[in-house]
Amino acid sequence: MQGTPPPQPRTAAVYPPTGRTVPTRSPGRAAYDRELVHAILDEGYVCHLGFVRDGAPVVLPTLYARVGERLYVHGSTGSRPLRAAGRADAGLPVCLTVTHVDGLVLARSAFHHSVNYRSVVVHGLAHDVTDPEEKRRALDALVDHVVPGRAADSRPADRKELAATAVIRLDLEEVSAKLRTGGVNDEPEDLALPHWAGVLPLRKGYDAPLPDPGLAPGTALPSYLAAL
Amino acid sequence: MQGTPPPQPRTAAVYPPTGRTVPTRSPGRAAYDRELVHAILDEGYVCHLGFVRDGAPVVLPTLYARVGERLYVHGSTGSRPLRAAGRADAGLPVCLTVTHVDGLVLARSAFHHSVNYRSVVVHGLAHDVTDPEEKRRALDALVDHVVPGRAADSRPADRKELAATAVIRLDLEEVSAKLRTGGVNDEPEDLALPHWAGVLPLRKGYDAPLPDPGLAPGTALPSYLAAL
Repeated sequence: MQGTPPPQPRTAAVYPPTGRTVPTRSPGRAAYDRELVHAILDEGYVCHLGFVRDGAPVVLPTLYARVGERLYVHGSTGSRPLRAAGRADAGLPVCLTVTHVDGLVLARSAFHHSVNYRSVVVHGLAHDVTDPEEKRRALDALVDHVVPGRAADSRPADRKELAATAVIRLDLEEVSAKLRTGGVNDEPEDLALPHWAGVLPLRKGYDAPLPDPGLAPGTALPSYLAAL
Repeated sequence: MQGTPPPQPRTAAVYPPTGRTVPTRSPGRAAYDRELVHAILDEGYVCHLGFVRDGAPVVLPTLYARVGERLYVHGSTGSRPLRAAGRADAGLPVCLTVTHVDGLVLARSAFHHSVNYRSVVVHGLAHDVTDPEEKRRALDALVDHVVPGRAADSRPADRKELAATAVIRLDLEEVSAKLRTGGVNDEPEDLALPHWAGVLPLRKGYDAPLPDPGLAPGTALPSYLAAL
């Protein structure tokens, strides 16, 4: 949005960097590769959505889903950012950030302690989704983004539930990924220090499912959940 | 910051709610209990920090630590929010959000799908930490917040590393927690549907540590890491 990037076809392999997607520090950790961005977004389902209210920032955790080059966020029609997006004809300026922490990097020096992570930051204008078909597809995508295959194995939203749910969309145009991977980067003169150094990988995945006590008799755990 | 809350001693059991810490929806999920807020903050180490740049929101993942009623965030002296906080005499308006996802709530209806989570949102003004002693304590706290006991078992920052690191502080004054716990809340008429329903708890913790290949001979895994 700062300066005018040249027009790019949607199929370009990278998101064109802009003034606000090029970091001032560690530029080597920034990436604009479309497939990498998609992979990071698709691995998660909770984002942190930032917007401005009365001149001050607000950051809220919320679910999201990606459909092609578009992200969707949903919530109650009464929630503040969703109402604000609905009122803003030009769209609501937002920043949507997704972060995966992969490991703790413990160096011999306090200064070189770090975290292995992969994050995506999306800047743009969020728009209220008013088309009923797009809204329904977005809600299915939100359920399937958390548990692939789940939307088809649940009772779809009825008219009243659809009316109580607001959906906003954010196009993937001004996007960057940032990553830190690998091991410890200590100073050469610190290598002989007696401190343990290495990486602590975070555990991922799920513990055993806890069935609702009122399950209809004979309801088995579906394969798409057993696979998680 | 909206309206003037009555003065409260720092030892009050709750953070006084304000206009922006009372949610417009699901107010029953909001909490202001100081001990609960501290527990949520102390369990994590990655926050999402929001600030406003050129009128638009920016949300970045970063490490934080709590020391009493104060949060600290650090970064390169070249990073944008840290530079902005240093320039702003009155402090930089920020929103710092910490979220733990505890489980997926799979209901029989798409509408009642949810996520069990605990989050804390802190609004306030971030200030550059200029006192060298406070800065050093904050950096120790940042290391110990990720791995308790680690600060004492690593080489402390030297003068050059301290000079390259900026630290900002944010007082815990305008704070709220939000939680969703428990099981599935389906509509009574959906209970007989044949869809599996229940909670998928997220796995927590760490996988086996990966030692740096260049560890000094005889360096054992310290007990504070084995305990994780």
